[in-house]
Amino acid sequence: MKSIEWIGGKVRFIDQTKLPTEEIFIETDDLAVLSDAIRTLKIRGAPALGVAAAYGIVLATQHLRTETLQELSDAVDRSASQIAHTRPTARNLFWALERMRSVCRLNTQESATQIHQRLLDEALAIHTEDREMCAAIGMYGAEVVPDPAVILTHCNTGALATGGEGTAQSIITTAFDQGKKISVYVDETRPLLQGARLTTWELQKKGIPVTLITDNTAAFVMARKKVDLVVVGADRIAANGDVVNKVGTYNVAIIAKEHGVPFYVAAPTSTIDLGSEHGGLIPIEERDPIEVTEGFGRRTAPEGTNVYSPAFDVTPHPLITAIVTERGILRPPFFDSIRSGLRRGNEGAV
Amino acid sequence: MKSIEWIGGKVRFIDQTKLPTEEIFIETDDLAVLSDAIRTLKIRGAPALGVAAAYGIVLATQHLRTETLQELSDAVDRSASQIAHTRPTARNLFWALERMRSVCRLNTQESATQIHQRLLDEALAIHTEDREMCAAIGMYGAEVVPDPAVILTHCNTGALATGGEGTAQSIITTAFDQGKKISVYVDETRPLLQGARLTTWELQKKGIPVTLITDNTAAFVMARKKVDLVVVGADRIAANGDVVNKVGTYNVAIIAKEHGVPFYVAAPTSTIDLGSEHGGLIPIEERDPIEVTEGFGRRTAPEGTNVYSPAFDVTPHPLITAIVTERGILRPPFFDSIRSGLRRGNEGAV
Repeated sequence: MKSIEWIGGKVRFIDQTKLPTEEIFIETDDLAVLSDAIRTLKIRGAPALGVAAAYGIVLATQHLRTETLQELSDAVDRSASQIAHTRPTARNLFWALERMRSVCRLNTQESATQIHQRLLDEALAIHTEDREMCAAIGMYGAEVVPDPAVILTHCNTGALATGGEGTAQSIITTAFDQGKKISVYVDETRPLLQGARLTTWELQKKGIPVTLITDNTAAFVMARKKVDLVVVGADRIAANGDVVNKVGTYNVAIIAKEHGVPFYVAAPTSTIDLGSEHGGLIPIEERDPIEVTEGFGRRTAPEGTNVYSPAFDVTPHPLITAIVTERGILRPPFFDSIRSGLRRGNEGAV
Repeated sequence: MKSIEWIGGKVRFIDQTKLPTEEIFIETDDLAVLSDAIRTLKIRGAPALGVAAAYGIVLATQHLRTETLQELSDAVDRSASQIAHTRPTARNLFWALERMRSVCRLNTQESATQIHQRLLDEALAIHTEDREMCAAIGMYGAEVVPDPAVILTHCNTGALATGGEGTAQSIITTAFDQGKKISVYVDETRPLLQGARLTTWELQKKGIPVTLITDNTAAFVMARKKVDLVVVGADRIAANGDVVNKVGTYNVAIIAKEHGVPFYVAAPTSTIDLGSEHGGLIPIEERDPIEVTEGFGRRTAPEGTNVYSPAFDVTPHPLITAIVTERGILRPPFFDSIRSGLRRGNEGAV
């Protein structure tokens, strides 16, 4: 399933807010439409946001006929700023925008036409790398999955959340494809139910046995059923290994520790933010209260109720067993393993 | 607010499934209607279930014109069995039915007419004691609430859940009425959102500052905001102090421990089941998957999704700071304090 694609000057993506009841694809060459789709979570998932952001820069500039590189570069900056304001937390979005901006900065001797081509090439490269990243994470991560394995996951980290086959979910599907006997407990993931709506939908399509639970049931499942490991994604990882991910991830990490269940985070190295020393320094998006009080078309709290709805939380690194990246598995102490992991591959990309 | 009342041969109760958008009261003299209301959670909350069960016995037998006490006693037993099959977990329901059955057993020399009166008196006594129990729990529990205090609670334990002003919630409102500066984080409590629908509604009516959060946000709230204590109710308490309560209670208890936040359980002694040595022996009701997959009036998971939806979970006693009862605060070791707590008052009632 391709959640996002570049097709002849347009971006085509599946509207994730309509799943699982409707599979609707949107095609646009308008950055405003794409930005709105990011803001309203039609497109979501940290790696997918990076891919979408890169394509957004191409959309915004591809028809711009400029004489000077400066004008084009300014247009890229303006569009990047517009996209950067959609959602504040996912590192990959800013990382992709920075790669796109670098195209102008690093090729000052070229013509505007050449830069147009380079921008498209860079966006396509980000997408291709994302696919390869998903496959590599799946391969490395599958090594830690026993056979048989009962896995608990939170939110959605599959094809919908990435440009490829997923991060945490790629580990699940890779282990399954290797012939391991896998079953998965999926947290529904309030408020927007990405687990219920998206993860169950994706895993069922692959024929992997899934049991949907409310987020409240995770602890009881670990106490009563055998859960072998938890695997989740990440929206941003601090330099010390603290993980910012969908709200509730921290709950699951604490619960896993209480039950002695290994807790794995899967994310590309583009999620790592060396500029944030620890998780407390990462901006946490707060969502509209209406997502909690009228989540699914009907009011479920009194009018005027005060709501606190952070989209993400911070899981402190001591709760994390390992971080699975496309460059291998990083283990504690993360301050060191993250740096050596980044050196292992193409450091320029991070 | 009176959630349940006995009015001239009928039971009148508020339909909790319609809150907070509609305040609809149902009046019935039909046990089938009452049983259905319990089954579908129109009436819910362990102590309220005890009151409803007692009134149910009166409804079923009040118009029965029998010559022999045996016939009346048999009718009480049949009705008790019918009510007992509505919901399996809450201890108070079975405790109240047992009290009603005892009325026949203990007064074999009386006439059927006298027993009719005794059954009504017993049901009204159960209701009155429940009101007094709520007040006593509030009084004892308020002692452990600092001033000011930020309190986190789960599910609904207020007037709606009891025949009086609540269990855990009575502690909150009593401390507030004492002039303490109280604010409350309310877990929305999936799947049926008793926190969002009922607790916010009740606390706002009393003018207590409330912030609604998804269950997933509890850990982040404890990490980022100052939470002074957690207080929850109980549906059944085992002899060793293990607490069966609304699913997600165990999650919150683990999270509270991680953050060094005291975790209090508030419940009448009628919730204690000395016959269950530990929480693992208490039957846990499983709810209809549709409450998870179509909880908000619209389908939010793919058709045919496998769901695990226990209504309750078990919080092991080592996670519990203290149990607040109408006879005082029970502290670890609970195996001893529960027994001495029960001896303190009218042991026959337990």
